[in-house]
Amino acid sequence: MKKFVNDPKDYVSEMLEGLALANPDTLKYVPEYNLIMRADAPQENKVSIVQGSGSGHEPAHVMTVGKGMLDAACPGDVFSAPPTDFVYETVKLVASPKGVLLLVNNYTGDRMAFEMAQELSEAEGVAVRTLFIDDDVAVQDSTYTVGRRGVAGNFFVMKAVGAAAERGADLDEVHRIGEKVNSVTRTMGMALTACTPPAKGSPLFDLPDDAVEMGVGIHGEPGRKREKLQPADAMVGELVSAVVDDLPYTSGDGVALMVNGLGGTPIGELYLVYGRAHKQLVERGIEIRRSYVGEYCTSLDMAGASVTLVRLDDEISDLLADPAEIPIRVF
Amino acid sequence: MKKFVNDPKDYVSEMLEGLALANPDTLKYVPEYNLIMRADAPQENKVSIVQGSGSGHEPAHVMTVGKGMLDAACPGDVFSAPPTDFVYETVKLVASPKGVLLLVNNYTGDRMAFEMAQELSEAEGVAVRTLFIDDDVAVQDSTYTVGRRGVAGNFFVMKAVGAAAERGADLDEVHRIGEKVNSVTRTMGMALTACTPPAKGSPLFDLPDDAVEMGVGIHGEPGRKREKLQPADAMVGELVSAVVDDLPYTSGDGVALMVNGLGGTPIGELYLVYGRAHKQLVERGIEIRRSYVGEYCTSLDMAGASVTLVRLDDEISDLLADPAEIPIRVF
Repeated sequence: MKKFVNDPKDYVSEMLEGLALANPDTLKYVPEYNLIMRADAPQENKVSIVQGSGSGHEPAHVMTVGKGMLDAACPGDVFSAPPTDFVYETVKLVASPKGVLLLVNNYTGDRMAFEMAQELSEAEGVAVRTLFIDDDVAVQDSTYTVGRRGVAGNFFVMKAVGAAAERGADLDEVHRIGEKVNSVTRTMGMALTACTPPAKGSPLFDLPDDAVEMGVGIHGEPGRKREKLQPADAMVGELVSAVVDDLPYTSGDGVALMVNGLGGTPIGELYLVYGRAHKQLVERGIEIRRSYVGEYCTSLDMAGASVTLVRLDDEISDLLADPAEIPIRVF
Repeated sequence: MKKFVNDPKDYVSEMLEGLALANPDTLKYVPEYNLIMRADAPQENKVSIVQGSGSGHEPAHVMTVGKGMLDAACPGDVFSAPPTDFVYETVKLVASPKGVLLLVNNYTGDRMAFEMAQELSEAEGVAVRTLFIDDDVAVQDSTYTVGRRGVAGNFFVMKAVGAAAERGADLDEVHRIGEKVNSVTRTMGMALTACTPPAKGSPLFDLPDDAVEMGVGIHGEPGRKREKLQPADAMVGELVSAVVDDLPYTSGDGVALMVNGLGGTPIGELYLVYGRAHKQLVERGIEIRRSYVGEYCTSLDMAGASVTLVRLDDEISDLLADPAEIPIRVF
């Protein structure tokens, strides 16, 4: 394993410490609960937004804490859900009189931790709602999931609810917006290589030199099929078709298009993928109104990419255009 | 080779096409000369800033074109200097009455192309100055270089001269600022793995599973030494010591600290590296006033990182704080 790591069990805490040191004015790291929060949270006049997930998907979610997005992120260890009590303590730390919205990518472990934390928090009088994100079209159920997985499309939900909360929307309204964005967002990804968790020290699965995993999950879960490596146009075409056909997105739709890198693929390749996807969508009569290229939801050092579409209306476009102040300036 | 690529000879042009498609309002792609320029260049009332280099270092430099940074970037093929006539055509396209500043990382091929383009442009009456960047402390001369190499510290020069130009500074003043920033900027990087150019299809050099290249160049050039893989603290310590001792940076200095990923290292590891470097610098009495973590100047898919320090004064701090509008929002 070739990584910048000391003791693998300190990987997450040392990463979070670095994140806080790099953003001393805006972020606070609370080591007891492994959480990153806005230094100025809670804001009394806005709904607080919290997301957690396993670590290893950075920038999701610890690097998307800031004005206009999350008030706090409570990550677990690499590819592990955060403990219920850490989620509960996070909710208490950022609880605002307007309530707390919990965002959860749809994995069984995360759902359990957040649902229990919601119950505990409500018992103490905090208004809490929970929203599950399940944008991944690759498979219906998966290794750690009943129902679809939540992946990079999560960013659009975070951004829209974060913007709505900053504008003063109440908890029900923020929840409505998040559900709406999730309902028009679809993603599929593919792996060129496996990823190596620091504590394991070796690749999580075997992928031959001439093969790719089409529809891979962000923890290396199997996708739709393993197939031969092909030229970019063909592989991008498979991703685009799977996403377009699912909602479906149709001629005349205006969309946001995101090409997300899975951690080991350089930005030059991601822009190449973006260009091919853009042209394929235009050929289908789909109008691209907003573009996102970079790393949003990764899988450690996995080489690969995902394609996300969001069908836009005026309300969603407007919320996505609001400013956000986060460590990585992806929006 | 596992990459998102069609015909490797189209790698750069397809990447640039994707970049332009993702930024239709702000960027223009000129395929004849392989260049990316601001859609609104030239601006009559400001010095135009141009940088070129081999491709494969993205986001440098095609993704740093925009208000407050570059007016144009003219990349060559992967790891190859741009042809002189492409640089010359770029200068003509963005020439402003206030002149053009050419930024060149110090590699022999790039120097030749830009010096000749400057002569050709001056013969046509364009006021041109050229500034060479050589922040890499690893080695004195190198495979493609007489004198030190220019690497990620280049971003601070780009940002400062871009800001000064937007404020209306004249060509001599913009050049003075660039020279000053370069003179207080130092970088060293290290590779955990080699990189694979698309046209070669295999790794550019061999690096055993238990070895790292300390002081590597961004084209895979040899560094100071090949050594055993160590825990992050020890490897970061070597980078920090080499950089600090070179200028040298001393107790009481206020600095900008950049941790730059070389393409294949995920952002989580980069923040871990940042945290370790930050603490080591604080122990030396150095005050970190500005922080940069992410990918700035890469080497295709190489796993590795570099550490850059800039000694700040009020003038440099002020320029670095100015806004910039570029595709990747790193500043």
